[in-house]
Amino acid sequence: MGGDRAPGEIVAGARQVAEQTDIKVVLVGRPGDMGDTGDLPVVPASEVIGMDDDPGQGVRRKKDSSLVRAAEAVRDGHAMAMVSAGNTGATMASALLRMGRLPRVIRPAIATPIPNLQRGRPTVLLDSGANAECTPQMLVQFAQMGAAFARKRYEVKEPRVALLSIGEEKSKGSPLVKETYTLLAEGAGGAGVNFVGNVEGRDFFEDITDVIVTDGFTGNVALKTLEGSLRFLISALTGILGLPELKEAADALFPHLLPLAFPLDPENTGGAMLLGVNGVCVISHGSSSSVAIVNAITVAHDEAVAGLVEDVAASVTPMESASGEEAGPTTGR
Amino acid sequence: MGGDRAPGEIVAGARQVAEQTDIKVVLVGRPGDMGDTGDLPVVPASEVIGMDDDPGQGVRRKKDSSLVRAAEAVRDGHAMAMVSAGNTGATMASALLRMGRLPRVIRPAIATPIPNLQRGRPTVLLDSGANAECTPQMLVQFAQMGAAFARKRYEVKEPRVALLSIGEEKSKGSPLVKETYTLLAEGAGGAGVNFVGNVEGRDFFEDITDVIVTDGFTGNVALKTLEGSLRFLISALTGILGLPELKEAADALFPHLLPLAFPLDPENTGGAMLLGVNGVCVISHGSSSSVAIVNAITVAHDEAVAGLVEDVAASVTPMESASGEEAGPTTGR
Repeated sequence: MGGDRAPGEIVAGARQVAEQTDIKVVLVGRPGDMGDTGDLPVVPASEVIGMDDDPGQGVRRKKDSSLVRAAEAVRDGHAMAMVSAGNTGATMASALLRMGRLPRVIRPAIATPIPNLQRGRPTVLLDSGANAECTPQMLVQFAQMGAAFARKRYEVKEPRVALLSIGEEKSKGSPLVKETYTLLAEGAGGAGVNFVGNVEGRDFFEDITDVIVTDGFTGNVALKTLEGSLRFLISALTGILGLPELKEAADALFPHLLPLAFPLDPENTGGAMLLGVNGVCVISHGSSSSVAIVNAITVAHDEAVAGLVEDVAASVTPMESASGEEAGPTTGR
Repeated sequence: MGGDRAPGEIVAGARQVAEQTDIKVVLVGRPGDMGDTGDLPVVPASEVIGMDDDPGQGVRRKKDSSLVRAAEAVRDGHAMAMVSAGNTGATMASALLRMGRLPRVIRPAIATPIPNLQRGRPTVLLDSGANAECTPQMLVQFAQMGAAFARKRYEVKEPRVALLSIGEEKSKGSPLVKETYTLLAEGAGGAGVNFVGNVEGRDFFEDITDVIVTDGFTGNVALKTLEGSLRFLISALTGILGLPELKEAADALFPHLLPLAFPLDPENTGGAMLLGVNGVCVISHGSSSSVAIVNAITVAHDEAVAGLVEDVAASVTPMESASGEEAGPTTGR
């Protein structure tokens, strides 16, 4: 029921997967509002947490919402994974409160793949929006979970993990970054983390790291800045290439632009992944079309089959949280 | 003496300005190391603070460095403004320690113009790297100084000022952003600030605000992410347009791409501006060519003549700094 183009595009993507692959798809939502769902089974849920609803309140009050019921289906073993293009904060809160945190995890984080054209496989950015406020101990765990994700999903043997900062030197950055640098450089988190130091905002498309760790505020700003900058330039170019007098040039260019445009389109990445909860939860763009949903479902299926959650769980070592805080509904969008 | 292409490109830009305009340019540096300086007067400085030197230590130890001598020239009235493409942190520290802070200013901030193609004049981002750690009171003053800058330099009558966050709602963001939101919404800082709420990373190229306020860590990450994303895509496109079989298409496109590429090239913006010190200090990109230096000198001249510093000074109201801290050398790159 969630997403700017729901339920039409969501149902269309789900039906396409069910028709063309062996993956079994279950829809969760208001049966009367979903249009033609074909042969797909439907888990009924009478409520919807809207895009603008407060995530924590939404999950607590709307116990029969599609998001809460989807997370419960995973918790109860009726589904192997959940996919949502709806309210990101509510998706996280549903997954966290119904599936629960993995042992030792202070806070779950959103891992987003950033396309890297030089080497063909993405760089993983986390946290890209789950936790506006973080401790160094949380960032160390993000490093562990991000490395486990890169190993499993992109088959990187020894993923390089970097901290997002404003200079390469360990003396650069916020107190949070400097403390985390020290912890990671000292080997906190164990052998799973191959820490390569700081990277900067300009390094997102370079092949110098496999995982970029940051707090959810900085990560969200950086991700949206990156997406917005690319979209701005691509839209300006599209305008130019649409000029009637440039039709011939545009036709000649098109086959060459496609291999560039395809990996940069968030529709094709399969969405972001909530790491640290006890189940697979894929967060798709709010603007997802059926293409994005097909990719998100495929990725969710593959990750569940591959045992990603087990690997993430095994990667996380106990870290004393400075404030001793407990996980709760978080503040992402 | 500073910058990746110094002193050659710096001296070339300075000579060009002196030859083609009425602006009087003074070089500061090692006379023997600057090549042919033509008719330009030289203030001798025997030392150089390198790109990798610690800013605070550099300024304290190298009292006869070009950066320190340039800031002293402004302080002592021998120059109206300083321009540097060198170590940004040391440029700030020199300006701060030699020119001094403006009255009431808790910390100076770097204001960077982000090109906006929709309306032709840039959006001002500050702080883009001077202060990795900020208080809400500092951000309120950045809002005041940024508005004064937009009014003076871009002739915006009532500049719209926004906070960079991870959602539009005032409940979104880090504690710093939420506290600053409350202060600005309550009118802290006075009538000079026309606060329009939060913007996100995706909004940098939209025409919804004139000034974007953030802490120097987030601002630096966002700015470098934006520059890196544009550079990545432009370089990929340049590669495609360089293919022999696309020569005709490239020739047809070129005149249409120029009006897009020109404003996006940092060489053409004239550099960033350190606001809050008692003098004009323009910070040019480390990679500045003579073209960038010509623009930076021109902007510095125009700002000094227009009385920008006086306007910035008048815009700042007293704010209690939470920690009561004093300004000191800062931690930018």
